[in-house]
Amino acid sequence: MITKEDLLGSKPLIIAGPCAVESREGILAIARSLKELGANALRTQLWKPRSEPGSFQGVGEAGLEWLLEVKAETGLPIATEVVAESQIEILKGVADILWVGARNMQNFELLKVLGKDDRPVILKRGFIATLGEWMSAAKYIGKERVIMCERGIRSGSDAMRFTLDLNAALVMRHDYKMPVIVDPSHTAGRRDMVPHLALAAIAAGLDGIVVEVHNEPEKALTDAKQQIDLVQFQELMEKVRRASTLFFS
Amino acid sequence: MITKEDLLGSKPLIIAGPCAVESREGILAIARSLKELGANALRTQLWKPRSEPGSFQGVGEAGLEWLLEVKAETGLPIATEVVAESQIEILKGVADILWVGARNMQNFELLKVLGKDDRPVILKRGFIATLGEWMSAAKYIGKERVIMCERGIRSGSDAMRFTLDLNAALVMRHDYKMPVIVDPSHTAGRRDMVPHLALAAIAAGLDGIVVEVHNEPEKALTDAKQQIDLVQFQELMEKVRRASTLFFS
Amino acid sequence: MITKEDLLGSKPLIIAGPCAVESREGILAIARSLKELGANALRTQLWKPRSEPGSFQGVGEAGLEWLLEVKAETGLPIATEVVAESQIEILKGVADILWVGARNMQNFELLKVLGKDDRPVILKRGFIATLGEWMSAAKYIGKERVIMCERGIRSGSDAMRFTLDLNAALVMRHDYKMPVIVDPSHTAGRRDMVPHLALAAIAAGLDGIVVEVHNEPEKALTDAKQQIDLVQFQELMEKVRRASTLFFS
Amino acid sequence: MITKEDLLGSKPLIIAGPCAVESREGILAIARSLKELGANALRTQLWKPRSEPGSFQGVGEAGLEWLLEVKAETGLPIATEVVAESQIEILKGVADILWVGARNMQNFELLKVLGKDDRPVILKRGFIATLGEWMSAAKYIGKERVIMCERGIRSGSDAMRFTLDLNAALVMRHDYKMPVIVDPSHTAGRRDMVPHLALAAIAAGLDGIVVEVHNEPEKALTDAKQQIDLVQFQELMEKVRRASTLFFS
Repeated sequence: MITKEDLLGSKPLIIAGPCAVESREGILAIARSLKELGANALRTQLWKPRSEPGSFQGVGEAGLEWLLEVKAETGLPIATEVVAESQIEILKGVADILWVGARNMQNFELLKVLGKDDRPVILKRGFIATLGEWMSAAKYIGKERVIMCERGIRSGSDAMRFTLDLNAALVMRHDYKMPVIVDPSHTAGRRDMVPHLALAAIAAGLDGIVVEVHNEPEKALTDAKQQIDLVQFQELMEKVRRASTLFFS
Repeated sequence: MITKEDLLGSKPLIIAGPCAVESREGILAIARSLKELGANALRTQLWKPRSEPGSFQGVGEAGLEWLLEVKAETGLPIATEVVAESQIEILKGVADILWVGARNMQNFELLKVLGKDDRPVILKRGFIATLGEWMSAAKYIGKERVIMCERGIRSGSDAMRFTLDLNAALVMRHDYKMPVIVDPSHTAGRRDMVPHLALAAIAAGLDGIVVEVHNEPEKALTDAKQQIDLVQFQELMEKVRRASTLFFS
Repeated sequence: MITKEDLLGSKPLIIAGPCAVESREGILAIARSLKELGANALRTQLWKPRSEPGSFQGVGEAGLEWLLEVKAETGLPIATEVVAESQIEILKGVADILWVGARNMQNFELLKVLGKDDRPVILKRGFIATLGEWMSAAKYIGKERVIMCERGIRSGSDAMRFTLDLNAALVMRHDYKMPVIVDPSHTAGRRDMVPHLALAAIAAGLDGIVVEVHNEPEKALTDAKQQIDLVQFQELMEKVRRASTLFFS
Repeated sequence: MITKEDLLGSKPLIIAGPCAVESREGILAIARSLKELGANALRTQLWKPRSEPGSFQGVGEAGLEWLLEVKAETGLPIATEVVAESQIEILKGVADILWVGARNMQNFELLKVLGKDDRPVILKRGFIATLGEWMSAAKYIGKERVIMCERGIRSGSDAMRFTLDLNAALVMRHDYKMPVIVDPSHTAGRRDMVPHLALAAIAAGLDGIVVEVHNEPEKALTDAKQQIDLVQFQELMEKVRRASTLFFS
């Protein structure tokens, strides 16, 4: 079993993978490449909580077997989102790291059930949560098992889908003493900007990134515009290593 | 059984009551007064989803009996929040109207279960949800049973706890064709401003308000600063009636 | 000479008129109608400070004579924007009320020169100014001559062009003890919503409105989508009178 | 005479200096150190446009001689803010680079006069300006002479004084093809976070930073909490050089 401390032993922590599991072959191919390129964990989703009912909702439980294969072959810990209490149990033995999405940051019922689990939990910040609200949500789970994740706020700025709030990530890390990683993919909503934001986060001294990577992004069933491909990921990894020496040394 | 149409037959719809059920005597006293003063439904909470674990979390199921008494005596329909799927079942026969709080607006698992119920649902807007996200959430429940509720957004303004977004409420009503009520209590966070915001909502032509009223606000266990007392509510009702003739006629 | 106290003697204060002076005949025709319908002052602009260089920039000094005719014939005080120090002098004897636009709320050089004038000044709030910044700007001019104007903030909400911040307007009025009027036209950006927001402001107990009215809005050279016509203004005035009795009595 | 191209020849461009000129000895001492540590230009202010009338308003014209001495001795180009048209003329021969503060981004009268000058202009983004508004303001000056500066937006986030909007800075650079530097000092409002944000900007591939540095920050007459000292600046410069190789190579 992997712990929060194990994960934070990687400086910086790089969690990468496709938005959603789409097929056995797809997830295996991506995971092999990511392992080789130095990712510390694989991120992906079996269930997709979509704003719009009717959109692709993920492969669901069918993907559990595939993820076990991925783990067996690559040794990569698996991080995946839970949106319902029942999934926590279903994912036992499969997911090593659970994450709570921005939309569920204050779904206290879900947080309380996560509080009884023993896996590390990545807690994404709500669309415009205060630092106090974010920290309170972490306490519902148990802060010693939580890694915070800044994924962009909704502000009056019209630049990209969301506004990356590095200021909040830094205050959470320095004043609240919590580890913080950044999700550059969802804040950007466009592939070409993901490496820029990822490197900003690392150079600012944050603990890592969680980034969407797909072997064929333009064919992805979800988030097609924001997933980077494996070549971009490789270049990003090389730069991340150099940027990480600025504060971690 | 009360329907959404029944509720909207009141022009405007006035839902009033204490933040939380605190005691049998308290809730009965308040309900009697509100009925007499012309409220159309009683709002209150058995479970309080608090940002901070450790705060007063509500009387829970103990209050079910008291609410049945309130209904039997006053005939007021009861509106209460659900934060967990199990509560939907527990509240059968007790709550006539269910509501989803801002923190759960995109808790899709909860919304889907509500979609199988047949009671009217008040759907509060998330802290900075777009109109599209808000409407999508309504569709998860089934829009024909939903009444939307604007309760203030978190913006860069430093005036009160939240910023009442009448513009969004109006667009939801006129462009999306959904009924919209306003919660002046949570946006204000201070008692003296509640009537001002409530009247603004009615004069703007929205469908109603949901307002926190307590017989002894300063002794309330929660939201003590923003609940108005019965005298203030009486004055408000008199003004609401006059304001409502501006658009409803 | 009209004073701030004279203006606030009208409860509520209604300042109405076309976005910009376009022709002698046009401004005379509109002013006559507005006078008849009960407006307390005429608002319009000779110079249009446009975000984009190259757009219609107003008739400029050519309009001074026309405004003198309007005053002589209707007796309406004239309110107009100043964007440059030199305009303050040029407008002596023509404009009775000066206003500072949102973009210049913290143009302290302009505010200081206005501080040496003796006419009432309407100070529009910056796009996301704090209450403290807004009040400080008023002090640069001299707060005893200033009427504050809330015109919408830029927030993360996607409903209309701006988000009307009634909460800020109310706090400015009740805690800072300043008179506050609301500009429903610029916050809405769409004609059909102007009366809704105007009535909300009056019903909330604010001191008045400044609203764009044109005799042929669809032919207006600027702000064509948000100016209401004279029929809409007449209906609005009738409702405003009723709404104003809610708090002013 | 230094040109915009000269300035951007430094990759990245580092403009550093005290918030305000406080004394001849002070500004000379700081400038000597900054030159030695590798700054490309000196930033400072003779006039301080303060939100609150009555605060320290700068040494004004008395500082012109001192700045000439600084230039003669160190060879550093001088960047300073203009808040009034008259200052543009007064600063001829003294200031090599002019800048427009956030509060004046849409003071079009000032921008138009700057359009007749030939020095490079740094244009700070307004508190919540859209990209289009920011770009339009640059066109008023003449975009070929403008360097854009992101200094933080006012959002609903409660982390620091402002929220650094790297997303907007990146879109301005990549889609609008304008050079963009970042001001980490005003967005942070606290000294310890300035290097983190500065490195984020450089690692993101932006063109440089403008940072407040004082030899005795705690004794500074303005912005005492956010100015870094010379030791911190030296460390920052060393890291900036390493970070700048990530994109500039």
